[in-house]
Amino acid sequence: MTDPRELTLIRELLDELFPIARSLSGAGNRATLDRLASVIPLKTHEIPCGTEVFDWIVPEEWRIRGGWIATANGERIVDFDENNLHVVGYSIPVNHRLLFSELEPKLHWLPEMPHAIPYRTTYYNKDWGFCVTQEQYQKLRGSTEPLEVVIDSELDASGSLTIGELLIPGRKDDEILVSTYICHPSMANDNLSGVIATTLLAKSIIDSGQPSHTWRFLFVPETIGPIAYVSNNPDIVDRTLGGLVITCCGGPGKLGYKKTFKGNHLVDRAIELAFRDFKIDPERYPFCPTGSDERQYSSPGIRIPVATICKDKYHEYAQYHTSEDNLDFVTPEQIGEALKVYREVQMILDSNTKIASTVKGGEPRLGARGLYPSTGGSNKQPGVTNRSRDALEYDLDAMMWVLFLADGDHDLVDIAETTGVAYSDIAIISNRLEESGLIVRV
Amino acid sequence: MTDPRELTLIRELLDELFPIARSLSGAGNRATLDRLASVIPLKTHEIPCGTEVFDWIVPEEWRIRGGWIATANGERIVDFDENNLHVVGYSIPVNHRLLFSELEPKLHWLPEMPHAIPYRTTYYNKDWGFCVTQEQYQKLRGSTEPLEVVIDSELDASGSLTIGELLIPGRKDDEILVSTYICHPSMANDNLSGVIATTLLAKSIIDSGQPSHTWRFLFVPETIGPIAYVSNNPDIVDRTLGGLVITCCGGPGKLGYKKTFKGNHLVDRAIELAFRDFKIDPERYPFCPTGSDERQYSSPGIRIPVATICKDKYHEYAQYHTSEDNLDFVTPEQIGEALKVYREVQMILDSNTKIASTVKGGEPRLGARGLYPSTGGSNKQPGVTNRSRDALEYDLDAMMWVLFLADGDHDLVDIAETTGVAYSDIAIISNRLEESGLIVRV
Amino acid sequence: MTDPRELTLIRELLDELFPIARSLSGAGNRATLDRLASVIPLKTHEIPCGTEVFDWIVPEEWRIRGGWIATANGERIVDFDENNLHVVGYSIPVNHRLLFSELEPKLHWLPEMPHAIPYRTTYYNKDWGFCVTQEQYQKLRGSTEPLEVVIDSELDASGSLTIGELLIPGRKDDEILVSTYICHPSMANDNLSGVIATTLLAKSIIDSGQPSHTWRFLFVPETIGPIAYVSNNPDIVDRTLGGLVITCCGGPGKLGYKKTFKGNHLVDRAIELAFRDFKIDPERYPFCPTGSDERQYSSPGIRIPVATICKDKYHEYAQYHTSEDNLDFVTPEQIGEALKVYREVQMILDSNTKIASTVKGGEPRLGARGLYPSTGGSNKQPGVTNRSRDALEYDLDAMMWVLFLADGDHDLVDIAETTGVAYSDIAIISNRLEESGLIVRV
Repeated sequence: MTDPRELTLIRELLDELFPIARSLSGAGNRATLDRLASVIPLKTHEIPCGTEVFDWIVPEEWRIRGGWIATANGERIVDFDENNLHVVGYSIPVNHRLLFSELEPKLHWLPEMPHAIPYRTTYYNKDWGFCVTQEQYQKLRGSTEPLEVVIDSELDASGSLTIGELLIPGRKDDEILVSTYICHPSMANDNLSGVIATTLLAKSIIDSGQPSHTWRFLFVPETIGPIAYVSNNPDIVDRTLGGLVITCCGGPGKLGYKKTFKGNHLVDRAIELAFRDFKIDPERYPFCPTGSDERQYSSPGIRIPVATICKDKYHEYAQYHTSEDNLDFVTPEQIGEALKVYREVQMILDSNTKIASTVKGGEPRLGARGLYPSTGGSNKQPGVTNRSRDALEYDLDAMMWVLFLADGDHDLVDIAETTGVAYSDIAIISNRLEESGLIVRV
Repeated sequence: MTDPRELTLIRELLDELFPIARSLSGAGNRATLDRLASVIPLKTHEIPCGTEVFDWIVPEEWRIRGGWIATANGERIVDFDENNLHVVGYSIPVNHRLLFSELEPKLHWLPEMPHAIPYRTTYYNKDWGFCVTQEQYQKLRGSTEPLEVVIDSELDASGSLTIGELLIPGRKDDEILVSTYICHPSMANDNLSGVIATTLLAKSIIDSGQPSHTWRFLFVPETIGPIAYVSNNPDIVDRTLGGLVITCCGGPGKLGYKKTFKGNHLVDRAIELAFRDFKIDPERYPFCPTGSDERQYSSPGIRIPVATICKDKYHEYAQYHTSEDNLDFVTPEQIGEALKVYREVQMILDSNTKIASTVKGGEPRLGARGLYPSTGGSNKQPGVTNRSRDALEYDLDAMMWVLFLADGDHDLVDIAETTGVAYSDIAIISNRLEESGLIVRV
Repeated sequence: MTDPRELTLIRELLDELFPIARSLSGAGNRATLDRLASVIPLKTHEIPCGTEVFDWIVPEEWRIRGGWIATANGERIVDFDENNLHVVGYSIPVNHRLLFSELEPKLHWLPEMPHAIPYRTTYYNKDWGFCVTQEQYQKLRGSTEPLEVVIDSELDASGSLTIGELLIPGRKDDEILVSTYICHPSMANDNLSGVIATTLLAKSIIDSGQPSHTWRFLFVPETIGPIAYVSNNPDIVDRTLGGLVITCCGGPGKLGYKKTFKGNHLVDRAIELAFRDFKIDPERYPFCPTGSDERQYSSPGIRIPVATICKDKYHEYAQYHTSEDNLDFVTPEQIGEALKVYREVQMILDSNTKIASTVKGGEPRLGARGLYPSTGGSNKQPGVTNRSRDALEYDLDAMMWVLFLADGDHDLVDIAETTGVAYSDIAIISNRLEESGLIVRV
């Protein structure tokens, strides 16, 4: 389904970006945004550490160069260079000789998944730790001599938090927000898939010429990113009609979506139409105030309705937040499937418009405009027009509905819902009627 | 059920009006309205051809005197004098000698119904044609010699479109609209039944003395008629609360109704109550913007909610728009059944009123007004009053509900819906309480 | 469940108050209120007979000293001193010698319940009568000689109607109304149970310190009482947000409640939450304008939404309005069960408040306030914090919801409904967040 060149690009981005050590801040995030900037004209902002943003303070920048646990004879049992999940995110620098019993409280492992490294962070609590497989854990436990424990990191109060932004100005000032988070290290579904899908969604909007609405794309670290961004740009709240948080959209599982806090906002309805028109029955997750950055955008002071289309959703797959959320789990084709839905939703949100009839009363004369069969009485007679009967009837019914609802109060989404006709067909009919001068956009 | 004298009148009207050749305009329509004017005080308006009405122009008046297809030896295989459906409505004049192969594109017939003549028109496309049975079609196809093809018609730009109107002024200025269409030639259900039912509904309102609301009855050609009327009388839109389009109400099938575009407007609710109180489970057709003149009244610039009670509804019976929709299909008794429902709906719409208690707080003293049992404690004791217990309890419960809802916000339709008590009983109780001075109409 | 000292008090009140002859007015009502005034600081008002109150006039005060039917030889077959139900309420004075056939129209008995005395009144119709068991009826019927028929009563136009009132001022001026009726003589469920439960509900509010809302308790005769009270205190209507009519809450049957006329008013929702949190599935009775004093409070001129929690509801038990509604039918424990629900509802109504976040955007920093686990990434890891995982997750989810809905538009009842978390837990979380400075009451 997805364009093969696009699949190739997704493959490249997966392969290049997967190994990078991302976190709330730091070099990995900048490297990631640099690579994306080769695909779309991304701008980056640096917000200095210590900046007060709503209830929060931008934390120190984390620099991580390495980290390991080695035996007395120098054998590195655990090494950040092999997998950046090994070091707990935001670990302070450490250089110790420790017995296993001293080290153990700093170790995280997964009893249920012997080969997986868990993903852990300690952003706002100065601490450190290692995440290890069960095998590594057993090996460490077996060592009776002191272990060399090193984390070569730095927390720099003079650093900054990096945010990527792309504004695609539309014909209208009102905005739609698309946000993804760039703070997760080497995990493919959560959230390299979201970062890549967001980039390619932005790319296709740009490639299609000026959109109707203004689209704002944000690439931010989770939680602190949206808070810092909105705190610095409070004026976007009023002019943003809704949006999408793109995350976890490259797994092998079923497509689904988490609703906005409104539950039946235009964003939800656009997503429902996209799934309906694609004949996909998605998993539906009601809104809850836990999850990803919808937490911040939906919060009392902001209240931008945002939804998330997933495949597979965070918390819903066994590999979540482990080293097994890797490039075996996520494929370009899977990202392509989710991207297709995101693009349909984007098309619906962008093209949706209220319409109004230009005729002051009664139906317009469709026949005079070639939009109605010229012989009255029945549509059952074969050969009434040059077009096939089914196509004509279908068009006619849908066209009559569009004209009937063209009162300045209904929009194309309403009409697609009311009629059951595919949104894209409604949009085509609406365009045709606009060209005939029978309706105008409101 | 229906008054035998009324059945006789329906029979006469069916027999007299069925053969008349009606169309969008012309002598047949005037003859039809003349006959109806002997039953109700109908006025007619003539709207000159060429008048611009909203998006439309009143078309030329069509005069049809005859039309036939004859063999070389003068045998008329198809003849308008035998059935006025034979000539396509609004056919231009024709006088040709044609081989069958030349004639064939102008023939309409029904492969599935060998004995039926279809009904076709070409109002807004200057063309001509014949509608024939399958037998006639075979006969024509068998003729190898040229056929005489004559349509003795005329399209007169100096003519006019005829509309029948009856205004029954009520005590209130706000109006209810009843519209039927007079443009169909010899078909009994569609729409001679509607024309007759409309006439008799108007007659019974007149016979019952001044109604509460003002009732406006229109007898118009479909589509162009309502458009022309409302275009010339735009002020009726604001003062019309809703209405009925009466059509196809004399068939042998089940009673049903097509909802207004609001779906739950007072008109729909009155219809639901009428069916409920008559213990009839009707077919329910949701609104759609195809159909009859509800298309025009419901259109964006007009938006008068109108419903249609049918028996059998257009498109829902095999004989629809053919010569088999005839006087065998429609009977006076069947029209009487639909008329009974229309009259109940008319009664409900006309008598419905918001009511308000005159008591400033608490219940009124019903006992002091003979409206409550004088011994308290139980209603279970036999012989509490002279009236049977069930009657009293029934009245009391319903009366308590009427008093409870008498707050100026609820009307009798609300109360009949809430209580499940027949609307007519609620109206009686309301009248009794009004006479007792306990409530007033708002 | 109920405090044993409270059960003892209920027992005492049942035993002392049951025998008292109450009615619309008179000494029995005053004696009852006097006894209650030893439990709560009740004030009494006397409204003079003849006072016009809305559509009504306060009737004459009834004094009843005795009444009997005796045989010629002086044997009292029926005697008020044995059961005060024997004399029809508000009977005029009588002193006659009557043959059974003359007496019979004045006798009330229950064919279906041989040992029961029915309860009857004739408040607004000057009349008299006796209520007897079937055995008494047979005995009277057997006597061929004249019977001595005496009612030693008095209707005093210079008397008054007695109302008990207790106002518990809260921190807010808006009020919640609790009303019970004191006009029923010796019947335990209807309504001694309601009188006692109302008294103990008032007592526990007083004992808990100043409530948030102002609570107004009324002890009135049915119908005329609320009408007279509201007529004299019309200003309470606007400041009363809703209330409870307490009646019939001491039977052995299932707990249930009759909804307010709104059906989904805050009072109904508080009752639903109380039952939900107690894991009780109650009988639900929709509002109807017959019943007890909800009839008056809900009437068009007053419209205070009131509900009634019952056990067993009037009309729903066989002993209703008979001498078998006695102290065998009602127990302190049963009243205690209903009282527990009433108290939960009272707590919910009193503590409910809209809340608003003090944070201007995004989530608050919960971690900095010890309200969030310090290690990020997963909640699946055992031992993340000192608290058990389940307790933390539960609290966290509920706390996140409280914070999410803290926008000044939602109240604690909304949040308890949305989350499914017990109202009392939501109230605790809300208090904790208020103490942390993260939310304020609106």
